Amino acid sequence: MLLHYIYLLAICAEAVSGALMGIRKDMDIFGICLIGTVAALGGGTVRDVLIGHYPLGWVAHPEYLAFTICAAVVAAAAARALHHFKSAFLVVDALGLVAFTIIGCDIARGFSVFHPAIVVILGMVTGVFGGLLRDVLCNEIPLVLRREIYASVSLLTGAMYVGILHLDIDPHIATLGSLLLGFAVRLLAIRFHWELPRLNKESIRGFD
Amino acid sequence: MLLHYIYLLAICAEAVSGALMGIRKDMDIFGICLIGTVAALGGGTVRDVLIGHYPLGWVAHPEYLAFTICAAVVAAAAARALHHFKSAFLVVDALGLVAFTIIGCDIARGFSVFHPAIVVILGMVTGVFGGLLRDVLCNEIPLVLRREIYASVSLLTGAMYVGILHLDIDPHIATLGSLLLGFAVRLLAIRFHWELPRLNKESIRGFD
Amino acid sequence: MLLHYIYLLAICAEAVSGALMGIRKDMDIFGICLIGTVAALGGGTVRDVLIGHYPLGWVAHPEYLAFTICAAVVAAAAARALHHFKSAFLVVDALGLVAFTIIGCDIARGFSVFHPAIVVILGMVTGVFGGLLRDVLCNEIPLVLRREIYASVSLLTGAMYVGILHLDIDPHIATLGSLLLGFAVRLLAIRFHWELPRLNKESIRGFD
Repeated sequence: MLLHYIYLLAICAEAVSGALMGIRKDMDIFGICLIGTVAALGGGTVRDVLIGHYPLGWVAHPEYLAFTICAAVVAAAAARALHHFKSAFLVVDALGLVAFTIIGCDIARGFSVFHPAIVVILGMVTGVFGGLLRDVLCNEIPLVLRREIYASVSLLTGAMYVGILHLDIDPHIATLGSLLLGFAVRLLAIRFHWELPRLNKESIRGFD
Repeated sequence: MLLHYIYLLAICAEAVSGALMGIRKDMDIFGICLIGTVAALGGGTVRDVLIGHYPLGWVAHPEYLAFTICAAVVAAAAARALHHFKSAFLVVDALGLVAFTIIGCDIARGFSVFHPAIVVILGMVTGVFGGLLRDVLCNEIPLVLRREIYASVSLLTGAMYVGILHLDIDPHIATLGSLLLGFAVRLLAIRFHWELPRLNKESIRGFD
Repeated sequence: MLLHYIYLLAICAEAVSGALMGIRKDMDIFGICLIGTVAALGGGTVRDVLIGHYPLGWVAHPEYLAFTICAAVVAAAAARALHHFKSAFLVVDALGLVAFTIIGCDIARGFSVFHPAIVVILGMVTGVFGGLLRDVLCNEIPLVLRREIYASVSLLTGAMYVGILHLDIDPHIATLGSLLLGFAVRLLAIRFHWELPRLNKESIRGFD
């Protein structure tokens, strides 16, 4: 299944993003591997814990851990050369965000009592909480809360996927359609620096 | 039921507190809504995950998410005017702390094997872990660990609630009594700047 | 059982480590007790939540909380004198790391479908995630990700324990053997300042 291969590619890309953050924070090789693994598998882990869906993906499939650890080690070894692959990295990360979201929605849909809005939100949790945990462990305000159209792409992808399935259209079409739409929107958001509105901090000065 | 309406009011107040923190940290509107939601629903979520109580409140009642997201958006839109409501906000937050605690104790009491001390602690987790997660996501040392009689009010409220119920007194009286006591103590703590003891950091200099 | 007494000693030592961190961060006595408790019981809590193993250890045994809270209070009261016990503290912490790991592996082995690598990793989670959560709550990059042979000792201990058991050797020998080996390696790592390799941050400058 195409989605599965995209998933494996994406967890490696997220592991690389975590590893780079770990290097930047002066971590040792254990820390680099752990941050890489959390970045890659943290979103799905949080989703599964929130809904009581056991065993977790990486517990049932230890090979996922092997992938993320290898990716983190390779990233550490090749750190000096990685900036040549910056664009490729952003493309795979965009693909991963969308694939994580669709997979998360699928697992949430297995719980038939969940409201469609909850399914979409659990897809978003799958897509963005890995990066969020990575940033918390690295003592940074999570990037996903501050910049760019990222979580919004995840919500849009999930909403489209769940919406199409509601119309009783073939699941393959739903998957492919929302995958392509989300991927395109994310790339456009990167290219044109789309951002969500923020507020002037000055506006709340009186509240401190 | 009175407690339920207080709960809905309180999650809106907590969502506003989270939204203000998000604005202060220069987050975009997605981050503001997420921090607001975590502040409002994080305590109950942590409690339910700790005891394996599924589905989570907001998963079974997606309207809670609608409330917190709306409250966060309204807070962001009206940020400039919010400082006029500072006192009202503190009052609702105090009410919320106490209501969260009692609701948390109630849910924990559903697990009949739990020791009463665990019930009280799970009430405290419900009351304070939303604010704690909000601060961790915003890269701050949680306020609740550093200042004022806040978690202590939650523990006192829970202990009184569980204690009265142990005496086979009518649950409505237990609820109302501990609600009023906790609320009063919290307001007094704010008014008179009550604080728990802290230590002089210098005292542990030799340990670094 | 020896392991159980080591466990009780170790949660007290970890509670002291958390309490000291809380004092350093200017927390009040509630915060000090909470950080101490999280440092002591957080690793086992994360492990149990990751595998859906309910009730959690401290929920079933509230006396663990009494131990950690007492240890934190005593640490706060005796903070000025604690640096005299610095070496003893490091020894108990090393013992605790190894004991936590073996206990974690044992609980994970109760789930017979888990891959041995997952058992070892859950042992490591038990050993190091308490300190990791302590540091996150105190707004520090977790020490365990940055310095010294610490998590690696946990992985080594778990691997040896699971490996010996695989050979159908008596569990008491497996426990004692891996306990002594892990303990010895940890003490040597402290004595000789062993560290895992880290990377030069400059090497990834192009990626920012």
